[in-house]
Amino acid sequence: MNKGKFFGIGVGPGDPELLTLKAVRIIENTMVLAVPKTKDNKNVALDIASQAINISKKDIIYLDFPMVKNKQVLKMAHLENASKIAEILDKGVDVAFLTLGDVSVYSTFSYIHSIIEKMGYFTEICAGVPSFCAVAAKLKISLTSMKKPLHIIPAVHGDVTKSLELDGTKVFMKAGGSVKAITKAVENKKVSIFGMSNCGMDSERCITDFENDDFGYFTTVVVKECEE
Amino acid sequence: MNKGKFFGIGVGPGDPELLTLKAVRIIENTMVLAVPKTKDNKNVALDIASQAINISKKDIIYLDFPMVKNKQVLKMAHLENASKIAEILDKGVDVAFLTLGDVSVYSTFSYIHSIIEKMGYFTEICAGVPSFCAVAAKLKISLTSMKKPLHIIPAVHGDVTKSLELDGTKVFMKAGGSVKAITKAVENKKVSIFGMSNCGMDSERCITDFENDDFGYFTTVVVKECEE
Repeated sequence: MNKGKFFGIGVGPGDPELLTLKAVRIIENTMVLAVPKTKDNKNVALDIASQAINISKKDIIYLDFPMVKNKQVLKMAHLENASKIAEILDKGVDVAFLTLGDVSVYSTFSYIHSIIEKMGYFTEICAGVPSFCAVAAKLKISLTSMKKPLHIIPAVHGDVTKSLELDGTKVFMKAGGSVKAITKAVENKKVSIFGMSNCGMDSERCITDFENDDFGYFTTVVVKECEE
Repeated sequence: MNKGKFFGIGVGPGDPELLTLKAVRIIENTMVLAVPKTKDNKNVALDIASQAINISKKDIIYLDFPMVKNKQVLKMAHLENASKIAEILDKGVDVAFLTLGDVSVYSTFSYIHSIIEKMGYFTEICAGVPSFCAVAAKLKISLTSMKKPLHIIPAVHGDVTKSLELDGTKVFMKAGGSVKAITKAVENKKVSIFGMSNCGMDSERCITDFENDDFGYFTTVVVKECEE
Protein backbone atom coordinates (compact mmCIF):
# COMPACT_ATOMS: atom_id res chain seq x y z
CA MET A 1 0.00 0.00 0.00
CA ASN A 2 1.22 3.50 -0.84
CA LYS A 3 2.09 5.64 2.13
CA GLY A 4 0.30 8.93 2.70
CA LYS A 5 1.98 12.28 2.08
CA PHE A 6 2.77 14.81 4.80
CA PHE A 7 2.03 18.47 4.00
CA GLY A 8 3.13 21.58 5.89
CA ILE A 9 0.74 24.44 5.14
CA GLY A 10 1.16 28.10 5.99
CA VAL A 11 -2.36 29.53 6.28
CA GLY A 12 -1.25 33.17 6.52
CA PRO A 13 -1.50 35.50 9.50
CA GLY A 14 -5.24 35.76 10.10
CA ASP A 15 -7.32 37.00 7.18
CA PRO A 16 -8.70 33.82 5.53
CA GLU A 17 -8.42 35.59 2.14
CA LEU A 18 -4.63 35.51 2.58
CA LEU A 19 -4.66 31.73 2.15
CA THR A 20 -2.94 30.80 -1.12
CA LEU A 21 -4.71 28.87 -3.88
CA LYS A 22 -2.28 26.03 -3.17
CA ALA A 23 -3.08 25.92 0.55
CA VAL A 24 -6.82 25.82 -0.24
CA ARG A 25 -6.36 23.01 -2.77
CA ILE A 26 -4.24 20.87 -0.45
CA ILE A 27 -6.49 21.37 2.59
CA GLU A 28 -9.60 20.60 0.50
CA ASN A 29 -8.01 17.36 -0.74
CA THR A 30 -6.64 16.18 2.60
CA MET A 31 -8.90 14.35 5.05
CA VAL A 32 -6.67 14.61 8.13
CA LEU A 33 -5.54 17.98 9.47
CA ALA A 34 -2.97 18.23 12.26
CA VAL A 35 -2.56 21.26 14.51
CA PRO A 36 -0.89 22.01 17.84
CA LYS A 37 -3.17 21.33 20.81
CA THR A 38 -4.41 24.24 22.88
CA LYS A 39 -6.23 24.23 26.22
CA ASP A 40 -9.64 24.58 24.63
CA ASN A 41 -8.90 22.90 21.28
CA LYS A 42 -9.31 26.29 19.58
CA ASN A 43 -6.43 26.45 17.18
CA VAL A 44 -5.85 29.77 15.39
CA ALA A 45 -4.52 28.24 12.13
CA LEU A 46 -7.49 25.86 11.99
CA ASP A 47 -9.86 28.72 12.66
CA ILE A 48 -8.40 30.69 9.73
CA ALA A 49 -8.65 27.73 7.34
CA SER A 50 -12.21 26.97 8.43
CA GLN A 51 -13.33 30.45 7.33
CA ALA A 52 -12.29 29.74 3.73
CA ILE A 53 -12.74 25.96 3.49
CA ASN A 54 -15.40 23.56 4.76
CA ILE A 55 -13.46 21.46 7.26
CA SER A 56 -16.50 19.98 9.04
CA LYS A 57 -15.85 16.50 7.64
CA LYS A 58 -12.10 16.48 8.31
CA ASP A 59 -10.41 14.46 11.01
CA ILE A 60 -8.55 16.88 13.27
CA ILE A 61 -5.48 15.61 15.11
CA TYR A 62 -4.44 17.81 18.03
CA LEU A 63 -0.74 17.41 18.79
CA ASP A 64 0.73 18.24 22.17
CA PHE A 65 3.67 20.69 22.12
CA PRO A 66 4.51 21.22 25.80
CA MET A 67 5.52 24.81 26.64
CA VAL A 68 8.74 23.84 28.41
CA LYS A 69 12.42 24.58 27.80
CA ASN A 70 13.79 21.12 28.70
CA LYS A 71 15.26 19.89 25.41
CA GLN A 72 14.80 16.22 26.25
CA VAL A 73 11.10 16.70 27.07
CA LEU A 74 10.60 18.67 23.84
CA LYS A 75 12.41 16.06 21.78
CA MET A 76 10.25 13.28 23.23
CA ALA A 77 7.09 15.28 22.47
CA HIS A 78 8.20 15.87 18.87
CA LEU A 79 8.97 12.17 18.40
CA GLU A 80 5.58 11.23 19.81
CA ASN A 81 3.80 13.72 17.53
CA ALA A 82 5.72 12.46 14.50
CA SER A 83 4.83 8.88 15.37
CA LYS A 84 1.11 9.78 15.59
CA ILE A 85 1.34 11.28 12.10
CA ALA A 86 3.36 8.33 10.75
CA GLU A 87 0.66 5.94 11.97
CA ILE A 88 -1.87 7.72 9.72
CA LEU A 89 0.54 7.98 6.76
CA ASP A 90 1.15 4.22 7.05
CA LYS A 91 -2.55 3.70 6.30
CA GLY A 92 -2.05 5.51 2.98
CA VAL A 93 -3.83 8.62 4.27
CA ASP A 94 -2.39 12.14 3.69
CA VAL A 95 -1.95 14.54 6.61
CA ALA A 96 -1.74 18.35 6.40
CA PHE A 97 -0.15 20.20 9.31
CA LEU A 98 -1.54 23.76 9.49
CA THR A 99 0.59 26.59 10.76
CA LEU A 100 -0.04 30.31 11.29
CA GLY A 101 1.69 32.64 8.81
CA ASP A 102 4.47 30.98 6.82
CA VAL A 103 5.84 27.51 7.56
CA SER A 104 9.52 28.49 7.54
CA VAL A 105 9.32 31.45 9.92
CA TYR A 106 9.15 30.58 13.64
CA SER A 107 6.88 27.57 13.24
CA THR A 108 6.89 24.39 15.34
CA PHE A 109 6.26 22.44 12.14
CA SER A 110 9.97 22.17 11.31
CA TYR A 111 10.70 19.81 14.23
CA ILE A 112 8.00 17.34 13.20
CA HIS A 113 8.84 17.71 9.53
CA SER A 114 12.50 16.76 9.93
CA ILE A 115 11.58 13.61 11.87
CA ILE A 116 8.96 12.56 9.28
CA GLU A 117 11.48 13.24 6.48
CA LYS A 118 14.09 11.08 8.20
CA MET A 119 11.50 8.30 8.54
CA GLY A 120 11.34 8.30 4.73
CA TYR A 121 7.83 9.65 4.10
CA PHE A 122 7.12 11.97 1.20
CA THR A 123 6.61 15.56 2.34
CA GLU A 124 5.65 18.85 0.71
CA ILE A 125 5.66 22.37 2.12
CA CYS A 126 3.32 25.16 1.04
CA ALA A 127 4.62 28.64 1.86
CA GLY A 128 2.25 31.24 3.32
CA VAL A 129 2.12 35.00 3.83
CA PRO A 130 4.13 35.76 6.99
CA SER A 131 2.56 38.08 9.55
CA PHE A 132 5.08 40.89 9.03
CA CYS A 133 4.11 41.21 5.33
CA ALA A 134 0.42 41.44 6.27
CA VAL A 135 1.23 44.02 8.96
CA ALA A 136 3.15 46.14 6.41
CA ALA A 137 0.22 45.90 3.97
CA LYS A 138 -2.26 47.04 6.62
CA LEU A 139 0.01 49.88 7.76
CA LYS A 140 0.59 50.76 4.07
CA ILE A 141 4.34 50.89 4.57
CA SER A 142 7.28 49.29 2.79
CA LEU A 143 9.45 47.12 5.04
CA THR A 144 12.54 47.99 3.05
CA SER A 145 14.32 51.16 2.00
CA MET A 146 16.32 50.94 -1.22
CA LYS A 147 18.83 48.09 -0.90
CA LYS A 148 19.11 48.07 2.90
CA PRO A 149 18.62 44.83 4.86
CA LEU A 150 15.47 43.76 6.69
CA HIS A 151 15.80 42.15 10.12
CA ILE A 152 13.06 39.94 11.59
CA ILE A 153 13.60 39.72 15.33
CA PRO A 154 11.62 37.78 17.95
CA ALA A 155 11.24 40.51 20.58
CA VAL A 156 11.13 37.97 23.41
CA HIS A 157 14.77 37.16 22.82
CA GLY A 158 17.92 39.26 23.07
CA ASP A 159 18.75 42.88 23.66
CA VAL A 160 16.34 45.27 21.92
CA THR A 161 18.83 48.16 22.10
CA LYS A 162 21.50 46.11 20.34
CA SER A 163 19.06 44.96 17.65
CA LEU A 164 18.14 48.57 16.99
CA GLU A 165 21.75 49.31 16.02
CA LEU A 166 21.41 47.07 12.94
CA ASP A 167 21.46 48.80 9.56
CA GLY A 168 18.07 48.89 7.78
CA THR A 169 14.54 48.05 8.98
CA LYS A 170 13.90 46.12 12.19
CA VAL A 171 10.69 44.07 12.60
CA PHE A 172 10.04 42.92 16.16
CA MET A 173 7.66 39.96 16.34
CA LYS A 174 5.55 38.95 19.35
CA ALA A 175 6.58 42.31 20.72
CA GLY A 176 3.69 42.88 23.14
CA GLY A 177 5.94 42.88 26.19
CA SER A 178 8.75 44.84 24.52
CA VAL A 179 6.92 47.85 23.05
CA LYS A 180 7.93 50.17 25.89
CA ALA A 181 11.59 49.02 25.76
CA ILE A 182 11.66 49.58 21.98
CA THR A 183 9.98 53.00 22.29
CA LYS A 184 12.50 54.05 24.92
CA ALA A 185 15.47 52.77 22.91
CA VAL A 186 14.52 54.74 19.77
CA GLU A 187 14.06 58.05 21.62
CA ASN A 188 16.07 60.78 19.87
CA LYS A 189 16.87 58.44 16.98
CA LYS A 190 16.01 59.32 13.39
CA VAL A 191 13.49 56.52 12.97
CA SER A 192 9.80 55.96 12.28
CA ILE A 193 8.02 53.45 14.48
CA PHE A 194 4.85 51.53 13.52
CA GLY A 195 2.89 48.86 15.35
CA MET A 196 -0.07 46.54 15.00
CA SER A 197 -1.74 43.93 17.19
CA ASN A 198 -3.60 40.80 16.03
CA CYS A 199 -3.22 41.63 12.32
CA GLY A 200 -5.96 40.07 10.17
CA MET A 201 -8.02 38.92 13.14
CA ASP A 202 -11.26 40.47 14.38
CA SER A 203 -9.34 42.11 17.22
CA GLU A 204 -6.84 43.74 14.81
CA ARG A 205 -5.64 47.11 16.03
CA CYS A 206 -3.15 49.66 14.74
CA ILE A 207 -0.99 51.04 17.56
CA THR A 208 -1.30 54.79 17.76
CA ASP A 209 -0.13 55.43 21.30
CA PHE A 210 3.12 53.64 22.03
CA GLU A 211 3.39 55.11 25.53
CA ASN A 212 0.06 54.38 27.12
CA ASP A 213 -1.38 51.50 25.15
CA ASP A 214 -1.50 47.89 26.25
CA PHE A 215 -0.41 45.26 23.79
CA GLY A 216 -1.20 41.59 23.16
CA TYR A 217 1.02 38.62 22.29
CA PHE A 218 0.55 38.97 18.50
CA THR A 219 1.98 42.48 18.35
CA THR A 220 4.42 43.49 15.61
CA VAL A 221 6.57 46.61 15.82
CA VAL A 222 8.40 48.00 12.77
CA VAL A 223 11.28 50.45 13.20
CA LYS A 224 12.31 52.15 9.96
CA GLU A 225 15.24 54.49 9.47
CA CYS A 226 14.12 57.91 8.25
CA GLU A 227 15.03 58.43 4.62
CA GLU A 228 17.36 61.29 3.80
CA MET B 1 -18.07 60.92 -9.66
CA ASN B 2 -16.37 58.54 -7.27
CA LYS B 3 -12.64 58.15 -7.76
CA GLY B 4 -11.17 54.73 -8.49
CA LYS B 5 -9.21 52.78 -5.91
CA PHE B 6 -5.51 51.98 -6.21
CA PHE B 7 -4.46 48.43 -5.24
CA GLY B 8 -0.97 47.09 -4.66
CA ILE B 9 -0.93 43.33 -5.17
CA GLY B 10 1.83 40.87 -4.31
CA VAL B 11 1.42 37.95 -6.72
CA GLY B 12 3.97 35.72 -4.99
CA PRO B 13 7.35 34.59 -6.26
CA GLY B 14 6.48 32.54 -9.35
CA ASP B 15 4.13 29.60 -8.82
CA PRO B 16 0.66 30.93 -9.78
CA GLU B 17 -0.83 28.71 -7.05
CA LEU B 18 0.94 30.91 -4.49
CA LEU B 19 -1.41 33.78 -5.34
CA THR B 20 -3.68 34.49 -2.38
CA LEU B 21 -7.48 34.30 -2.61
CA LYS B 22 -7.49 38.05 -2.02
CA ALA B 23 -5.08 38.78 -4.88
CA VAL B 24 -7.19 36.64 -7.23
CA ARG B 25 -10.42 38.40 -6.18
CA ILE B 26 -8.98 41.89 -6.60
CA ILE B 27 -7.31 41.17 -9.95
CA GLU B 28 -10.51 39.53 -11.26
CA ASN B 29 -12.54 42.60 -10.26
CA THR B 30 -10.12 45.22 -11.57
CA MET B 31 -10.14 46.19 -15.24
CA VAL B 32 -6.82 48.05 -15.33
CA LEU B 33 -3.58 46.35 -14.31
CA ALA B 34 -0.33 48.33 -13.99
CA VAL B 35 3.13 46.78 -14.14
CA PRO B 36 6.69 48.01 -14.66
CA LYS B 37 7.67 48.19 -18.32
CA THR B 38 10.26 45.79 -19.67
CA LYS B 39 12.05 45.78 -23.02
CA ASP B 40 9.69 43.23 -24.54
CA ASN B 41 6.58 44.02 -22.46
CA LYS B 42 6.95 40.62 -20.77
CA ASN B 43 6.36 41.36 -17.13
CA VAL B 44 7.02 38.51 -14.68
CA ALA B 45 4.29 39.51 -12.19
CA LEU B 46 1.74 39.78 -15.00
CA ASP B 47 2.83 36.41 -16.38
CA ILE B 48 2.27 34.79 -12.96
CA ALA B 49 -1.20 36.33 -12.58
CA SER B 50 -2.19 35.35 -16.12
CA GLN B 51 -1.59 31.66 -15.30
CA ALA B 52 -4.27 31.76 -12.58
CA ILE B 53 -6.64 34.44 -13.85
CA ASN B 54 -8.00 35.30 -17.29
CA ILE B 55 -6.49 38.73 -17.93
CA SER B 56 -7.14 38.80 -21.69
CA LYS B 57 -9.78 41.52 -21.36
CA LYS B 58 -7.81 43.72 -18.96
CA ASP B 59 -6.20 47.00 -19.90
CA ILE B 60 -2.50 46.72 -19.16
CA ILE B 61 -0.58 49.89 -18.32
CA TYR B 62 3.19 49.54 -18.65
CA LEU B 63 5.01 52.04 -16.44
CA ASP B 64 8.56 53.12 -17.09
CA PHE B 65 10.96 52.73 -14.17
CA PRO B 66 14.36 53.79 -15.55
CA MET B 67 17.28 51.72 -14.26
CA VAL B 68 19.37 54.71 -13.18
CA LYS B 69 20.76 55.93 -9.86
CA ASN B 70 20.14 59.65 -10.36
CA LYS B 71 17.57 60.50 -7.66
CA GLN B 72 16.08 63.40 -9.58
CA VAL B 73 15.50 61.29 -12.69
CA LEU B 74 13.93 58.52 -10.57
CA LYS B 75 11.68 60.98 -8.76
CA MET B 76 10.45 62.44 -12.02
CA ALA B 77 9.71 58.96 -13.38
CA HIS B 78 7.76 58.05 -10.22
CA LEU B 79 5.74 61.28 -10.43
CA GLU B 80 4.97 60.63 -14.09
CA ASN B 81 3.87 57.03 -13.36
CA ALA B 82 1.68 58.20 -10.48
CA SER B 83 0.09 60.82 -12.67
CA LYS B 84 -0.73 58.19 -15.34
CA ILE B 85 -2.48 56.12 -12.67
CA ALA B 86 -4.26 59.15 -11.19
CA GLU B 87 -5.66 59.95 -14.63
CA ILE B 88 -7.41 56.56 -14.67
CA LEU B 89 -8.54 56.78 -11.02
CA ASP B 90 -10.10 60.17 -11.81
CA LYS B 91 -12.39 58.40 -14.28
CA GLY B 92 -13.72 56.28 -11.42
CA VAL B 93 -11.77 53.23 -12.61
CA ASP B 94 -9.79 51.02 -10.20
CA VAL B 95 -6.14 50.19 -10.91
CA ALA B 96 -4.20 47.21 -9.53
CA PHE B 97 -0.40 47.42 -9.55
CA LEU B 98 1.08 43.90 -9.67
CA THR B 99 4.37 43.15 -8.02
CA LEU B 100 6.51 40.00 -7.74
CA GLY B 101 6.55 38.35 -4.30
CA ASP B 102 5.28 40.59 -1.50
CA VAL B 103 4.51 44.31 -1.90
CA SER B 104 6.46 45.48 1.15
CA VAL B 105 9.75 43.69 0.43
CA TYR B 106 12.00 45.37 -2.17
CA SER B 107 9.21 46.43 -4.51
CA THR B 108 9.10 49.57 -6.66
CA PHE B 109 5.40 49.87 -5.78
CA SER B 110 6.10 51.83 -2.58
CA TYR B 111 7.33 54.92 -4.44
CA ILE B 112 4.19 55.16 -6.57
CA HIS B 113 1.95 54.27 -3.65
CA SER B 114 3.19 57.07 -1.41
CA ILE B 115 2.61 59.64 -4.17
CA ILE B 116 -0.92 58.34 -4.89
CA GLU B 117 -1.68 58.33 -1.14
CA LYS B 118 -0.52 61.96 -0.82
CA MET B 119 -2.74 62.88 -3.77
CA GLY B 120 -5.68 61.71 -1.63
CA TYR B 121 -6.79 58.58 -3.48
CA PHE B 122 -8.02 55.52 -1.61
CA THR B 123 -5.45 52.72 -1.65
CA GLU B 124 -5.32 49.12 -0.45
CA ILE B 125 -2.37 46.74 -0.28
CA CYS B 126 -2.62 42.96 -0.58
CA ALA B 127 0.36 41.11 0.90
CA GLY B 128 1.90 38.19 -0.98
CA VAL B 129 4.24 35.28 -0.32
CA PRO B 130 7.81 36.66 -0.46
CA SER B 131 10.36 34.71 -2.51
CA PHE B 132 12.45 33.68 0.51
CA CYS B 133 9.47 31.83 2.06
CA ALA B 134 8.85 29.96 -1.19
CA VAL B 135 12.55 29.12 -1.44
CA ALA B 136 12.53 27.72 2.11
CA ALA B 137 9.42 25.64 1.31
CA LYS B 138 11.04 24.18 -1.81
CA LEU B 139 14.30 23.46 0.04
CA LYS B 140 12.23 22.01 2.92
CA ILE B 141 14.14 24.04 5.49
CA SER B 142 13.11 26.37 8.27
CA LEU B 143 14.49 29.90 7.93
CA THR B 144 14.68 30.28 11.69
CA SER B 145 16.26 28.40 14.57
CA MET B 146 14.53 28.72 17.91
CA LYS B 147 14.22 32.42 18.79
CA LYS B 148 17.17 33.67 16.73
CA PRO B 149 16.72 36.54 14.26
CA LEU B 150 16.29 36.25 10.49
CA HIS B 151 18.14 38.69 8.24
CA ILE B 152 16.99 39.42 4.67
CA ILE B 153 19.90 40.96 2.79
CA PRO B 154 20.04 42.20 -0.82
CA ALA B 155 23.32 40.59 -1.88
CA VAL B 156 24.06 43.35 -4.37
CA HIS B 157 24.61 45.78 -1.53
CA GLY B 158 27.14 45.85 1.27
CA ASP B 159 29.84 43.59 2.58
CA VAL B 160 28.87 39.90 2.49
CA THR B 161 31.53 38.97 5.08
CA LYS B 162 30.16 41.53 7.55
CA SER B 163 26.56 40.37 7.00
CA LEU B 164 27.64 36.81 7.75
CA GLU B 165 28.72 37.87 11.23
CA LEU B 166 25.08 38.59 12.17
CA ASP B 167 23.48 36.27 14.72
CA GLY B 168 20.85 33.88 13.26
CA THR B 169 19.93 33.01 9.67
CA LYS B 170 21.06 35.11 6.73
CA VAL B 171 19.03 35.16 3.48
CA PHE B 172 20.82 36.76 0.54
CA MET B 173 18.43 37.90 -2.19
CA LYS B 174 19.33 38.42 -5.87
CA ALA B 175 22.56 36.70 -4.95
CA GLY B 176 23.53 35.40 -8.40
CA GLY B 177 26.70 37.47 -8.53
CA SER B 178 27.60 36.93 -4.87
CA VAL B 179 27.39 33.14 -4.50
CA LYS B 180 31.14 32.64 -4.76
CA ALA B 181 31.88 35.47 -2.28
CA ILE B 182 29.36 33.99 0.20
CA THR B 183 30.75 30.46 -0.26
CA LYS B 184 34.29 31.72 0.35
CA ALA B 185 33.25 33.76 3.41
CA VAL B 186 31.59 30.78 5.13
CA GLU B 187 34.55 28.44 4.65
CA ASN B 188 35.50 26.84 7.97
CA LYS B 189 32.39 28.29 9.62
CA LYS B 190 29.83 26.09 11.37
CA VAL B 191 27.03 26.86 8.91
CA SER B 192 24.78 25.13 6.42
CA ILE B 193 24.38 26.81 3.04
CA PHE B 194 21.41 26.37 0.71
CA GLY B 195 20.57 27.98 -2.62
CA MET B 196 17.91 28.14 -5.29
CA SER B 197 17.51 29.97 -8.60
CA ASN B 198 14.23 31.12 -10.22
CA CYS B 199 12.04 29.60 -7.47
CA GLY B 200 8.53 28.77 -8.67
CA MET B 201 9.35 29.43 -12.32
CA ASP B 202 9.82 26.82 -15.06
CA SER B 203 13.57 27.36 -14.84
CA GLU B 204 13.62 26.71 -11.05
CA ARG B 205 16.81 25.02 -9.92
CA CYS B 206 18.17 23.94 -6.55
CA ILE B 207 21.86 24.81 -6.21
CA THR B 208 23.89 21.71 -5.50
CA ASP B 209 27.35 22.85 -6.53
CA PHE B 210 28.21 26.23 -5.07
CA GLU B 211 31.72 26.19 -6.52
CA ASN B 212 31.22 25.44 -10.18
CA ASP B 213 27.64 26.39 -10.90
CA ASP B 214 26.49 29.54 -12.69
CA PHE B 215 23.69 31.50 -11.15
CA GLY B 216 20.95 33.83 -12.43
CA TYR B 217 19.58 37.13 -11.10
CA PHE B 218 16.74 35.51 -9.09
CA THR B 219 19.06 33.44 -6.93
CA THR B 220 18.50 33.14 -3.18
CA VAL B 221 21.18 31.87 -0.79
CA VAL B 222 20.34 30.87 2.79
CA VAL B 223 23.11 30.57 5.39
CA LYS B 224 21.98 28.83 8.60
CA GLU B 225 24.02 28.40 11.74
CA CYS B 226 24.49 24.73 12.61
CA GLU B 227 22.39 23.74 15.61
CA GLU B 228 24.23 22.46 18.65
